[in-house]
Amino acid sequence: MKEFKNRGKYFHYLESEAARDRLCMFVIYTLGGYSHRMNGYTQDKDDIARRLKRVEGQVRGIGDMVGADKYCIDVLTQISAATKALESVALLLLSDHLNHCVVEAIEGGGPEVSEKIQEANDAIARLVRS
Amino acid sequence: MKEFKNRGKYFHYLESEAARDRLCMFVIYTLGGYSHRMNGYTQDKDDIARRLKRVEGQVRGIGDMVGADKYCIDVLTQISAATKALESVALLLLSDHLNHCVVEAIEGGGPEVSEKIQEANDAIARLVRS
Amino acid sequence: MKEFKNRGKYFHYLESEAARDRLCMFVIYTLGGYSHRMNGYTQDKDDIARRLKRVEGQVRGIGDMVGADKYCIDVLTQISAATKALESVALLLLSDHLNHCVVEAIEGGGPEVSEKIQEANDAIARLVRS
Amino acid sequence: MKEFKNRGKYFHYLESEAARDRLCMFVIYTLGGYSHRMNGYTQDKDDIARRLKRVEGQVRGIGDMVGADKYCIDVLTQISAATKALESVALLLLSDHLNHCVVEAIEGGGPEVSEKIQEANDAIARLVRS
Repeated sequence: MKEFKNRGKYFHYLESEAARDRLCMFVIYTLGGYSHRMNGYTQDKDDIARRLKRVEGQVRGIGDMVGADKYCIDVLTQISAATKALESVALLLLSDHLNHCVVEAIEGGGPEVSEKIQEANDAIARLVRS
Repeated sequence: MKEFKNRGKYFHYLESEAARDRLCMFVIYTLGGYSHRMNGYTQDKDDIARRLKRVEGQVRGIGDMVGADKYCIDVLTQISAATKALESVALLLLSDHLNHCVVEAIEGGGPEVSEKIQEANDAIARLVRS
Repeated sequence: MKEFKNRGKYFHYLESEAARDRLCMFVIYTLGGYSHRMNGYTQDKDDIARRLKRVEGQVRGIGDMVGADKYCIDVLTQISAATKALESVALLLLSDHLNHCVVEAIEGGGPEVSEKIQEANDAIARLVRS
Repeated sequence: MKEFKNRGKYFHYLESEAARDRLCMFVIYTLGGYSHRMNGYTQDKDDIARRLKRVEGQVRGIGDMVGADKYCIDVLTQISAATKALESVALLLLSDHLNHCVVEAIEGGGPEVSEKIQEANDAIARLVRS
């Protein structure tokens, strides 16, 4: 088990557990013995899930518009809206990732810091270019 | 009923019908009397519908990843892929729109030409900025 | 010499002249005998040139910021501004292109219509993906 | 004077100096007494300056194309290239910023960590949306 300190609190996590799901996923054992799995976007998870549900509905709606031969420009307007909504989710996830996974990796030190930063930079580049 | 010529073929369409669904939707009455509704993306409709179905599945899959606490960067990679897929559909729709709706509007002449071009430009701007 | 009608006015242009600089460049011979070269963005040329001059200055200023070791985030803010300014110029050019070159190609008929539309679609795709 | 440790080396910097140019700019006093100013992109500074010089030349060239009435689509192609080049510089700067300024802020601890991450997120959002 590994200990690390995050913003004044001490956490312990099982590295094997973390390894299974890549690096920012860990099991928190609080001092009281309560444990739960956490990742970078845990505190925004419900919000993110809700937004993705909405985008899924938007995309289904766009499919229905096409099925009903709706006007091209109206279909395009909805696609732009869905794209923007996906981008907002991506920016929120990225912000959570930097605020938690990257901060924790750096605070924990070790070789995975550059890997984490590199990963974040690659994700940003994909986002900027998509 | 209005007549227009598109690439060597003569078509007749009901303006009232077109007006109901905005300008690029029309009812084709071929010389043989057969009629069907058409719009700018008619020939790509199945392809577009299939792609949108796939994006809908991708977005649902991303929601499932979030529900299963998958690693932020892996979620982001899937969001970039879904965004790119939506953009491709948009570019195909836009291409169909220019090739058909705009071409037909211009060939038909009339005041809606500038409106059509303006609409296309606005859609392009939304796409470039989304 | 070829004649075409654009929004109620008749124009004549030399196809050889047009061919030299690709298709949307032509020489206008007005009824009074006055002639001048025109292209899709002629009426916005001064505005476009002025905006590009400003972007050029912005980029030079960004280079100076880097030379003076200015803070990364401040440099990034200026790069985003310059990128947005370039995109606006691109959207204006594209709008002019659709309003003039594409409209004229379609009104003139002929085999270059699909080529023009294809070119426009390719340019839009490059813009959306850049 | 403040001391901080970065990747095994100890540095001292004058906070007043840093404050003047915002947070990631500092004066390094090595153990031998040699000092130099540094920031997040110091090691890529020449490369970044060279690329910006090239973009500046590209934009000037685009202005010349417009002055010479070059074909809209050819101008658009060059604008897409310049936009892509600016984006690459932005991604390099952002990567340097995360690798240095953010890493150092986190390693140094203190209240500016969240500010730095927020700033980075805002810069990423501007980039994704531009």
